[in-house]
Amino acid sequence: MASSDDILKLLKVQYPIIQAPMVGVSTPELAAAVSNAGALGSIGLGASSVQQAQNMIQETRSLTDKPFNVNLFCHRPAVADPIREAAWLAYLSPFFAEFDVKPPASISESYRSFVADENMLEMLLHERPAVVSFHFGLPPVEWISSLRKAGIVILACATSLKEAGMIEAASVDAVIAQGIEAGGHRGVFDAKEDQQIGTFALVQLIARSSHLPVIAAGGIMNGQGIEAAMKLGAAAVQLGTAFILCPESAANTQFRAALQSERAYHTQISSVISGRPARGMINRLFTDIDSTGAPALPDYPITYDATKALHAAASNKGNFDFAVQWAGQGAPLARALPASKLIQTLVAEWHAEGG
Amino acid sequence: MASSDDILKLLKVQYPIIQAPMVGVSTPELAAAVSNAGALGSIGLGASSVQQAQNMIQETRSLTDKPFNVNLFCHRPAVADPIREAAWLAYLSPFFAEFDVKPPASISESYRSFVADENMLEMLLHERPAVVSFHFGLPPVEWISSLRKAGIVILACATSLKEAGMIEAASVDAVIAQGIEAGGHRGVFDAKEDQQIGTFALVQLIARSSHLPVIAAGGIMNGQGIEAAMKLGAAAVQLGTAFILCPESAANTQFRAALQSERAYHTQISSVISGRPARGMINRLFTDIDSTGAPALPDYPITYDATKALHAAASNKGNFDFAVQWAGQGAPLARALPASKLIQTLVAEWHAEGG
Repeated sequence: MASSDDILKLLKVQYPIIQAPMVGVSTPELAAAVSNAGALGSIGLGASSVQQAQNMIQETRSLTDKPFNVNLFCHRPAVADPIREAAWLAYLSPFFAEFDVKPPASISESYRSFVADENMLEMLLHERPAVVSFHFGLPPVEWISSLRKAGIVILACATSLKEAGMIEAASVDAVIAQGIEAGGHRGVFDAKEDQQIGTFALVQLIARSSHLPVIAAGGIMNGQGIEAAMKLGAAAVQLGTAFILCPESAANTQFRAALQSERAYHTQISSVISGRPARGMINRLFTDIDSTGAPALPDYPITYDATKALHAAASNKGNFDFAVQWAGQGAPLARALPASKLIQTLVAEWHAEGG
Repeated sequence: MASSDDILKLLKVQYPIIQAPMVGVSTPELAAAVSNAGALGSIGLGASSVQQAQNMIQETRSLTDKPFNVNLFCHRPAVADPIREAAWLAYLSPFFAEFDVKPPASISESYRSFVADENMLEMLLHERPAVVSFHFGLPPVEWISSLRKAGIVILACATSLKEAGMIEAASVDAVIAQGIEAGGHRGVFDAKEDQQIGTFALVQLIARSSHLPVIAAGGIMNGQGIEAAMKLGAAAVQLGTAFILCPESAANTQFRAALQSERAYHTQISSVISGRPARGMINRLFTDIDSTGAPALPDYPITYDATKALHAAASNKGNFDFAVQWAGQGAPLARALPASKLIQTLVAEWHAEGG
């Protein structure tokens, strides 16, 4: 168990607060605003090409000279299965038909796992962002070693003690303990092994067993939550849903409205949206697509390709019932504040709690 | 949101710590030891006849003159369905066969819901325990009113904001916010509506929306956890798994050994054991009986009757793979201490955290 001071030195930040990388929601503007305010901003590169990823890093760098974090997805690379994919599209076709559209003829892996993308590694070694974090697993240990030798601090996400142990064994610098409350994709390495541990239990268990500093994630929305996480043994915290309503995020009007409505009180985990378990606000993706009668899912992220096509068909007709709106169980506590003001507020609330 | 001082006055205790009622594990000795140490001990009467319940209250009272809590189950009364029950027993028959036993010819509701047991109400009004708590729902509002008029403090368990609202509307004195981490039966009123909210999110959400004092439950195992729960808005805490290893509990040798083994790291929620979702240490009940091929479950607690028969058959042959061993996600943090020493330790740890 490491202290908050250690992690401030490690991350070279003023406050032990990380804005979670959220592909589709986080932006260079959001990350830079958070970093400029003394916390650690993040951008999500998991669904980007190498060129897009490099552009985002450079854009963020043009907006801040402070450290920021770039996040990569380390899932097992998707294995195409035309029969399974065709069955999935056939299953979705009645939903497409509601919008007078046929499903796409095929779906595919629209972005690659970092573990299968050596060019992405080369780009990172060239750009040298201050911090790199991993989700869904770990890259080869030699890659972690190269990144660390380049002076990059490495974080990785664990949803269980087993994953935290693998992360520590891989010489990562700090472990993100992601509880079941968290919005978006669960970081679980193998989705079949998901233990669904709540933040309250997970942070304590990992802090006790790991020598790494623990970054708590899941349900943290304010300074009271930050201090609670610290009491459970965290050295820092990562907040995602708390930043969605910032003007600097890429969340669209419908997403913002949903998050400020009654819908924020109802989130659920489903794998049918992307092929991996993720938590979002309940809409027809959860109530209609996720059904006991559904066929076997295509691999992540091939499934996602179909969902995005369905949402495009629906939204073209003004229907947003199939929008991907990831959010955590603390969603009703999200506040619409500029990122710098949100960081100031979090810190003030935290200090008021004795933090 | 109420302060801890208010709840100390309400419960007439020295410390805002409640030992959870755990049918089969809690005992008059445990409850009395906890109450004598300045916290609130509990006995679980949910599976008892009126006479057994009265005996337990009197036994507890003979061991302490301090307030203690008695817990009742308020589930929708079971509806017998001989066809469904026969199908369930047929499904279980290969497991019984492993121990050269046939399943029971029939299963039934071996204990009644409090809401259908007016004699239990009369007994409570006669005995007047200091505190009565409800799980799985609420009794008729007139019953709550009679109990309160008799000077009894009323608590009830919520797993969602909706249930917390119903509890407040029923003039209950305080709400127990039970997060997904908690061991044993989820208090959810209607199991089909389980939102599976983590302690970290649930305590904050209920504390913000309810006028009642919030008692946090789920994953709390030590003083650090107590202070974290208080930071999230709790006025008090309820710990169950933390008390299983106390010498005063009724947990048997196998249960204690399991809780102190690697098995404590793996808990899961299943409905197949009793007919309602409950969290316990994973054994063959979870891995073998809970299967996608299982037929429709008999009503709670009729299903439980079959599980208990199966465990009896297995344990008669020295096999404990079908034992009911409820525990929460914080199970690895349980300590084998006498109840009074555990309370002292919890309080000392909590004070060290600034509580």
